[in-house]
Amino acid sequence: MDIFYGLDILGTIAFATSGTLAAIHKKLDPFGVFIIAFVTAIGGGTLRDILIDRNPVSWMQDLNYVYAIIGATIFTILIRKKIDYLSTSLFLFDTIGLGIFTIIGTEIGIQQNLHPVISIILGTITATFGGVIRDILCNEIPIIFKKEIYASACIAGAITLIILSNLEIDTNTNYIITTLIVISIRLIAVKFKLRLPTFIIEKK
Amino acid sequence: MDIFYGLDILGTIAFATSGTLAAIHKKLDPFGVFIIAFVTAIGGGTLRDILIDRNPVSWMQDLNYVYAIIGATIFTILIRKKIDYLSTSLFLFDTIGLGIFTIIGTEIGIQQNLHPVISIILGTITATFGGVIRDILCNEIPIIFKKEIYASACIAGAITLIILSNLEIDTNTNYIITTLIVISIRLIAVKFKLRLPTFIIEKK
Amino acid sequence: MDIFYGLDILGTIAFATSGTLAAIHKKLDPFGVFIIAFVTAIGGGTLRDILIDRNPVSWMQDLNYVYAIIGATIFTILIRKKIDYLSTSLFLFDTIGLGIFTIIGTEIGIQQNLHPVISIILGTITATFGGVIRDILCNEIPIIFKKEIYASACIAGAITLIILSNLEIDTNTNYIITTLIVISIRLIAVKFKLRLPTFIIEKK
Repeated sequence: MDIFYGLDILGTIAFATSGTLAAIHKKLDPFGVFIIAFVTAIGGGTLRDILIDRNPVSWMQDLNYVYAIIGATIFTILIRKKIDYLSTSLFLFDTIGLGIFTIIGTEIGIQQNLHPVISIILGTITATFGGVIRDILCNEIPIIFKKEIYASACIAGAITLIILSNLEIDTNTNYIITTLIVISIRLIAVKFKLRLPTFIIEKK
Repeated sequence: MDIFYGLDILGTIAFATSGTLAAIHKKLDPFGVFIIAFVTAIGGGTLRDILIDRNPVSWMQDLNYVYAIIGATIFTILIRKKIDYLSTSLFLFDTIGLGIFTIIGTEIGIQQNLHPVISIILGTITATFGGVIRDILCNEIPIIFKKEIYASACIAGAITLIILSNLEIDTNTNYIITTLIVISIRLIAVKFKLRLPTFIIEKK
Repeated sequence: MDIFYGLDILGTIAFATSGTLAAIHKKLDPFGVFIIAFVTAIGGGTLRDILIDRNPVSWMQDLNYVYAIIGATIFTILIRKKIDYLSTSLFLFDTIGLGIFTIIGTEIGIQQNLHPVISIILGTITATFGGVIRDILCNEIPIIFKKEIYASACIAGAITLIILSNLEIDTNTNYIITTLIVISIRLIAVKFKLRLPTFIIEKK
């Protein structure tokens, strides 16, 4: 429970930071920035909680999530001039959030006795949906459909988590390995500009 | 139950196919294609289940939905070069899904003892919402707001289903008639470029 | 309960009217207009009900909401030529809905024993989400991110409501004061083109 809760807060902070950076970049006013940060941080987990009828959704029961978001937003706003390479920072925090929330979502699916396939889908939804809403609201093409490996990293991470669980690896070790796998796949994919091939269609 | 379940799977396959075609057209990578296929196929039913608190939503309880989507996606990808007229195929599968999901949604509304007016709205939401999400994610204007008769066909179908139910017509016959009505209205509307009139406003 | 229910219907009518005006402006057909009116009117309250697991969502239990939306839509369509300054009318109805739905959402949060901070967020979601969906579907930049004070007015109203509740001010008086505060802040902000400052970022 302990490391699980800590990771959930950490993922929330990471996504709130990525949301704040995206919103500042779009020149929104302070409340607009906070709303984007909030939606990015809680969007994926909220959809997950609604889907499995885990209500009221976690951030409504526990104010620490809201405080974490407010703190991350204010901190990011204050140090924004220090962050020279905005898109790199945004990418980094987005990737950390992605790794952590893949675990959270998949693990909750397993705990609810959902089928592993559904748990993988739930992990992917938890990890990606906040960013998708952020991008739709900021009028960007959702990052999930951009060329770099993104959802694939989540799916690989979720599968790893389930395999390691079945091998009865220690939970904390499992979480750390899984997070690192998601983050590494994404870092390597972007670094070497890896992408999955797309399909060629014959136009009439 | 039998024909109902069969129709639900069939509608899922039809919408997964339409989502796959739309995503291939947008040159998404395989996971992007699967995500769009998945969201198109389960979007409407998931919103319906959330609205009436029918949880966990159907595809989380029954893996056949997920298998049907994966199967339809892979099959569509494999035969994509055979499908010469992409937009025609997309239109056709979208229309079949529309007809079937109108029945599913309206029927579930009736079974939950909702008022007929609410059941009609529920049928329309079930039938149209997957396509609306598909179009938003693919950055197209939602098909529901395009000129061809679309939501109107669902509403006509839902009303037919309710009237035939009250006339105590055999359920299977009712389902087949209703589906054919929705599909026919839409086919005729597109064939003859029928559209509802829009309102003229006086600009200042 | 009485004034609460009356305000909820009034807010529904105000948002249905603003949705109708936006949809006519986009030259949608009658069903498209109705769908936008419907989504604008019930979007915020539906998300609120889903978040706090208050199901089935209010408009499914009580047809008066649906009738209010249908009535407002038809009435607005009929008198559209009389409304010379479309954007002014849209702004006005949107602002009235905003004021009323801030109260409804915040009050429901308080009644559900949610923390005041969460109640404020719930009030803001109830008030703004319908308009956000309307703008996304109409392919406009969500009004919430435009330059005028918008979410800030909701938050100010929600805080006022909570303070006046704690001061044990008469409920009806409280509702009226709060609504007027939200509406006044927004009117003044637009009239004098007030806006919150945005952040300056140093580009590399």
